Amino acid sequence: MQLSEIGEFGLIRRIERLCRHKAEGLILGIGDDSAVIKGLSGFVLITSDVLIEGVHFDLRYTTPQQLGHKALAVNISDIFAMGGRPRFFLLDIGIPHGFDPRDVEDIYRGLNGLARRYDVSVIGGDTSLSRKGLLLCGTLIGESERPIRRSGAGIGDGIFVTGTVGDSAMGLELLKRGYRARGSRSRRIKAHHLRKLIKRHLTPEPVMLSRTDDVTSMIDISDGLLMDLGHLCDGSNVGALIYKDRIPLSEELRCVASALKKDPYAYALGGGEDYHLLFTSPSRDREDGVRIGEIIKRGRYIIDETGRRIPFKAEGYEHFKIRASKR
Amino acid sequence: MQLSEIGEFGLIRRIERLCRHKAEGLILGIGDDSAVIKGLSGFVLITSDVLIEGVHFDLRYTTPQQLGHKALAVNISDIFAMGGRPRFFLLDIGIPHGFDPRDVEDIYRGLNGLARRYDVSVIGGDTSLSRKGLLLCGTLIGESERPIRRSGAGIGDGIFVTGTVGDSAMGLELLKRGYRARGSRSRRIKAHHLRKLIKRHLTPEPVMLSRTDDVTSMIDISDGLLMDLGHLCDGSNVGALIYKDRIPLSEELRCVASALKKDPYAYALGGGEDYHLLFTSPSRDREDGVRIGEIIKRGRYIIDETGRRIPFKAEGYEHFKIRASKR
Repeated sequence: MQLSEIGEFGLIRRIERLCRHKAEGLILGIGDDSAVIKGLSGFVLITSDVLIEGVHFDLRYTTPQQLGHKALAVNISDIFAMGGRPRFFLLDIGIPHGFDPRDVEDIYRGLNGLARRYDVSVIGGDTSLSRKGLLLCGTLIGESERPIRRSGAGIGDGIFVTGTVGDSAMGLELLKRGYRARGSRSRRIKAHHLRKLIKRHLTPEPVMLSRTDDVTSMIDISDGLLMDLGHLCDGSNVGALIYKDRIPLSEELRCVASALKKDPYAYALGGGEDYHLLFTSPSRDREDGVRIGEIIKRGRYIIDETGRRIPFKAEGYEHFKIRASKR
Repeated sequence: MQLSEIGEFGLIRRIERLCRHKAEGLILGIGDDSAVIKGLSGFVLITSDVLIEGVHFDLRYTTPQQLGHKALAVNISDIFAMGGRPRFFLLDIGIPHGFDPRDVEDIYRGLNGLARRYDVSVIGGDTSLSRKGLLLCGTLIGESERPIRRSGAGIGDGIFVTGTVGDSAMGLELLKRGYRARGSRSRRIKAHHLRKLIKRHLTPEPVMLSRTDDVTSMIDISDGLLMDLGHLCDGSNVGALIYKDRIPLSEELRCVASALKKDPYAYALGGGEDYHLLFTSPSRDREDGVRIGEIIKRGRYIIDETGRRIPFKAEGYEHFKIRASKR
């Protein structure tokens, strides 16, 4: 099927049919000059993320459905990182010539699957031709009674992470090496490790804290643990000290890194797109976070296995900068 | 200057410095996982529009500053088309390799010039590499006590348009023919006509109604007068009858069309991006709108100069569809 057969407005009607989930407060969704909502309580949160083919994703690795999931998941993660509740989503989509409209519908299927689980309504977005490559631009509206910023970390606070890091970066590495979640056979790498790591990359699951009353600052790990910790330190004007051996690594990452003769910490510290939360709290323990270090007055250090205190710079994904292998 | 020298976060800091206008209710702008606002009253309106290089604009025709203006203007027009007040704007930007960061700053200068005039705060957006071409994706949040939809037109209502149509389409035509707003000399076309028409295309000025109490339905003219009137009829489940000789044409459009031996009505009826408002009202007259016809029960007709009633189909810009010269 060709888009030229159904046209822009035919496509919009198909999308509309797929976006039937109406969250509370939605007055008017797709189909007018703007969407209309009512009754957002507390503070209103707004975040936006673009996914560009050839930059953020590769259609040889991901299905349209997985891509739709991810376009919403990365935005939900930003709302969760503010301690908020996601509510309404808009997706702008730029579609290259010759793209199958059924694949566009699959993007919305993946999107809506996740949206329903979090009670998010898909309420609009612009539909356009793209000159080259598929392009998704998502904006999510959320709400929060007490938004948690990057700027509240206090000296002595513990630094917590909600789960294992580096899995997504290793998943991407595997995809680039030609492995797929299904059908790839390898003597070195176990099939279920492959599946788990690739899944973490292609369909990340946003993470939410069950309570935030004692959380002083928070960020989601999208650029990489060290870089996002750097953003948090910049925002709070403090330093940080983390313990390498406390950083949670998955069994899957350890095994696959070993099979590939790679250092798993390179993925855990510098890899991005984990979509776990990194937060600070004066509490000693949190049941939903692993304490990996403390906020200090200034300087950024990692204590390695031998007890050495090594200064670190932000290291992770930054657009436009050519990443040096050593900094 | 190269983007690789300043990096993504260097660019974000430059953008932040340019987006200093803080509208009431803005708690947190650029620089965290999401923006935070408070105190939106009434209904919340959200609209989004993408501008893709090679599809929506051509950097041979437009300056970055004009482009920044337009990225916000088209979204403000959508909020005005709902009878709303624009408040907060996010701009996602995809930047191709080698693009000068000073041009990115100019985009934000153009954007902020318009934002200040309408008391809109630029509160965030994603910054990314683009594989090919510049890409702008704007989302605007507004508010309204009584949103005006496309669906309220009643039989017998007058159909009004807020100003001359076809100017933008003719401006684009002139640009495509190699004319520029400055420096182009032509024996056939007057310099001030050229300037005016090209300006209408490159830096449209959004139009707002001074009062909307008697307005039953409204849409902004982005796809073309007949097509947008078609959307309004679809939304309200009614028909329309318009009088060709009442459609407001500018002196500039008439003169230039005549010089180019073109029918000015082809631009006025089928050209897009006018960003005037098309609305219906039971009132006989409106000081801010020209009455061009009436809402009827069914059918869509245009009465020509000789009094003939000619059925029309929606004709205007639709992505993906190849436009037939006659339909």
